[in-house]
Parts: sequence; structure tokens; C-alpha cells
Amino acid sequence: MSETGTIESVGLTEEAVRQIVREELGRAERRDPATKKAAIIASKGTLDFAYPPLILATTAAATGMETHVFFTFYGLNIVHREFESKLKVSPVGNPAMPTPVPMPNLVTVVPGMGPLATSMMKSRFDRKHVASIAELLDTARELGVHLVACQMTMEVFGYEPDDLIEGVELGGAAAFLSEARRAHLTLFI
Amino acid sequence: MSETGTIESVGLTEEAVRQIVREELGRAERRDPATKKAAIIASKGTLDFAYPPLILATTAAATGMETHVFFTFYGLNIVHREFESKLKVSPVGNPAMPTPVPMPNLVTVVPGMGPLATSMMKSRFDRKHVASIAELLDTARELGVHLVACQMTMEVFGYEPDDLIEGVELGGAAAFLSEARRAHLTLFI
Amino acid sequence: MSETGTIESVGLTEEAVRQIVREELGRAERRDPATKKAAIIASKGTLDFAYPPLILATTAAATGMETHVFFTFYGLNIVHREFESKLKVSPVGNPAMPTPVPMPNLVTVVPGMGPLATSMMKSRFDRKHVASIAELLDTARELGVHLVACQMTMEVFGYEPDDLIEGVELGGAAAFLSEARRAHLTLFI
Repeated sequence: MSETGTIESVGLTEEAVRQIVREELGRAERRDPATKKAAIIASKGTLDFAYPPLILATTAAATGMETHVFFTFYGLNIVHREFESKLKVSPVGNPAMPTPVPMPNLVTVVPGMGPLATSMMKSRFDRKHVASIAELLDTARELGVHLVACQMTMEVFGYEPDDLIEGVELGGAAAFLSEARRAHLTLFI
Repeated sequence: MSETGTIESVGLTEEAVRQIVREELGRAERRDPATKKAAIIASKGTLDFAYPPLILATTAAATGMETHVFFTFYGLNIVHREFESKLKVSPVGNPAMPTPVPMPNLVTVVPGMGPLATSMMKSRFDRKHVASIAELLDTARELGVHLVACQMTMEVFGYEPDDLIEGVELGGAAAFLSEARRAHLTLFI
Repeated sequence: MSETGTIESVGLTEEAVRQIVREELGRAERRDPATKKAAIIASKGTLDFAYPPLILATTAAATGMETHVFFTFYGLNIVHREFESKLKVSPVGNPAMPTPVPMPNLVTVVPGMGPLATSMMKSRFDRKHVASIAELLDTARELGVHLVACQMTMEVFGYEPDDLIEGVELGGAAAFLSEARRAHLTLFI
């Protein structure tokens, strides 16, 4: 804008003002704070559905997004001190789970199938170099992901703050929503 | 801007215009309508997953957000006149559900375990003073939450408008999306 | 703004500039690119939960939204060449599924109930003229919906690109999030 020197002395025209406005708007859109914020609810307590909130949260945080994960209902399992034993998969009622051999429903409810499915999933992820839940939790905390446990379900399930892993805050739905309403990326998992 | 009096007579400089633009942009960001709108899809028909859409919707509405809940597939159970009997929990296939004693899968499928799990969850929530589904539905309607039943799944499941509780509108996915595309908070539960 | 001719010659007043800014802001809000973008994660591999991502994606695309669906975990079933046989419903562990007659849990795990429930759901949707999964996939591709299969879960489940239907790209969580962070409509199904 080399010519602005002269224009400034006599004031800007409407066209020049609109041009400035569009420039500033473009800049504002590119730095839109909602594109830099992620708010994820983790409500499932099985091993398979513990991966998506942690993989998405660490990926979002790694690209510089301010990331919040709210653990509620069965999702509290993921941040429970005993998450290693609490996070299991169940082949029952999930005809979509790949199994080594096709199994009718009656077989999947036989005692022992759950532990087998759980250890199978763990070794399959490990073989493909997917980070474990423990590693994903560490990465999330290193990247500054806000891990928040739902106070209400803590009480309903009878959990104490000491039952949770280090670095988890307690919070309510209202506090979570006040972050989520300012984020483009909002997911209920 | 005490100096604007003089400037106005000869027109604003580019710097003064940029300053005004940034002020107005800041104001626009703070009143961004997308931060004041919530669009939630409720697709699950179990007692446990009836809580999250209603708790989140009433919390959002209580903080002044325009809130829409779209009940589709099994989520129609939540706004069915007989929701009290339709909303049940099943311990089958959910190894994450806390139970009083550890149960192998074979036990959880025995007739009677479902009703037991359902009444246990109800009394546990009640003891912790969590509002019941009936209370949450009342609060949602008092706060002006838009409760919309999915027309397509109504037809597939053979439900009539009279099968639903008072205050529920019928609508399609397109109408829901036209709200959701203007909302930051969008969740599929 | 018929009077701007005169104003321009002596420069705009602060009030005139604010007026222009608000006009441009209003225009920018109406064309907000985040309202024209949808980012959906499809993680379930059952017949019933194959419908919501495809119905929502095709509806969004039909109204002109740039739509991305990321198939991950069991959701890969939906874009697998053998989706017709892979997508099943299971009455086990889903007390919300309408059945012709009430069934205790023990009956729903009997071999044969799964296939019966699957064919019942298909014919029920068909009778109500709901598009089939095959038709929804065709519509999605015709409307230019971006169908992306999660590379990581492809490897974990041992799927090859050739195992997927035509027109599916491979991608990672980071690529998906870079779209999702610019979209108002973000759902995890």
C-alpha cells in the first residue's frame, strides 16, 4: 500500500476501508480460536473405545490445539488407577469385532472369551506399534491435554479422587460445556 | 478516542480504521452465535445413555444456549410415553458396567439380570441426588430445549406422534443439520 | 449509500467506517466456511449404526456442505467390499432394539437370533423406503463425500486397500482433524 501516504492525508475512501476490513477479517478467520480448541467426552469404558479419545486428543494437542477430555460414566475407567485391569473388550453383542474364527453368540458369552478377546486386542495393537493406553495417557499429560473426571459420575460410581491416575482434574458438565462452546471440534465418544 | 473529532473532519487514517475494525471483530467474536447453540443427537435407548443427552442439553440451556436434541433410532425410547419401562440397562456385552460382584458373561445373560441392573442404576443415581429421566425431561421442556423426534425412524419403528411425550416436535435430518451447522457444540450420543 | 460521493472526497467519519465494518462482518458470518463443512467419524460396524453416518453425510452433502467421513475401528466394515455380509445387528446387550416379541437375554444369545434380527431390520427399512447401505454409499460418492479409511486400524485389522469399496481414500487421524477443526459439524458415531 505505497499510495496510502497520500490517501491518509485526505482520508480513506469507502473502497479503501472495505479493503482493510476484508484483510482484517481474513486474518481473524485464519486465527479463529475455535479452530484451535478440541473438547472430547469419553463415556465408554471398554479397551477398544479407550483408544479413540486418547488417540484423537493426543493428535489434536500435537498439532497445537488446546485439548480437553471429559471422562464420564464408564469412561472413568480410562483414568482409573487400575485402568489396565478395568479396560476389557467383550465380544458379546458386538458382531463387528473381528475374531480369529467366526463365533456364534452362545460361544461369546462363555466365561473366558472376554479375557481372550482383551489379550488378543492388546497384542494385535502392540504388533502394529500402536501406543498402549498407558503410553497414550503419558503423552496426553506431557502435551498438556486437560484430563477432567466427571464429578457427578465419580460420586454415583463411588470413586474417590485417589482412585484416579495423577494429573486428572475434577469438573462438572457446565465447566466442560463452557470450553466446548468455544471449540469447533466437539465429540462424544 | 478523544482525538477523533479532528480526524473525522479530514477523514480517518488507515491505522485508525484498522483499530476500529479490530474492535468490532473482537465484539463479534465474543457474541459469535455459534457459541450459543447446541445440537445433540440422542441415538441410544438404554437407561445409562439416556442421561448424557439430557444432562448436557439441560446444562447447555441453563447457561443460555439455544439447544436442540434430535432423538433418532433407539434414542426415540427417551421421549416415548413409556420411557420409564423402555429405558433399561443391560449388563450383557458391557464389561465396563460396575456390578456389585464380578459376573462372568454367562451370568449376565441369565433372565432377571437386566431388570436387576436397571433398578440398581436407578437407586444409585437417586441416592446421589441425580435428577431422574422424568425430571430431566421436565427441566428440558421448561428451559425451552427443542426436543425433536426423527420422522424417518418413527416410521421404521412404527411409532405414532401420540406415542411420544408432550412437547416433542417431529423433524428430519436436514432440518436438524441446518441448526447443527451453525452450532459449535455438536454431539452424537 | 448515495451520499458517499461527497463523503469520500473528504474521508469517512468513524461512524461511517463502523457501519461498513458491521456490513462486512455480517456478510462474513453468513458465508462462514465452518458452517459449510462436516466431519464425521464412523466407528461402529453394526448394520444399525452404519445408517447414521451415511444418512447424515449424504444429507449434509446434498445441502452443499463439504463432507468428510472417517471410517475407523469397526466402522471399516461399512466400506469393506463385503459390507453386505459384515454389517449385522445383534440383539444381545441391546435392550433398546425393538423385537417382534419380548425376548429375555438368554434367548437373544441363541445362535440364529443375530441373522434373524439383521434380516428383520433390512426388510423393515426397505418397507419404509429407506435407502439401503449400498444405495447410501453410492449417493455419498456421487455427491462427492470424502470417504476416508483409517490407515492405523486398517493395519491393526489386517485389511488391504483392495479390501475396500471403490472411491475410498486412506488417511490418518491428523489429516482428519485438520479438516474437522475447520468444521462446525463434528460427530463421532
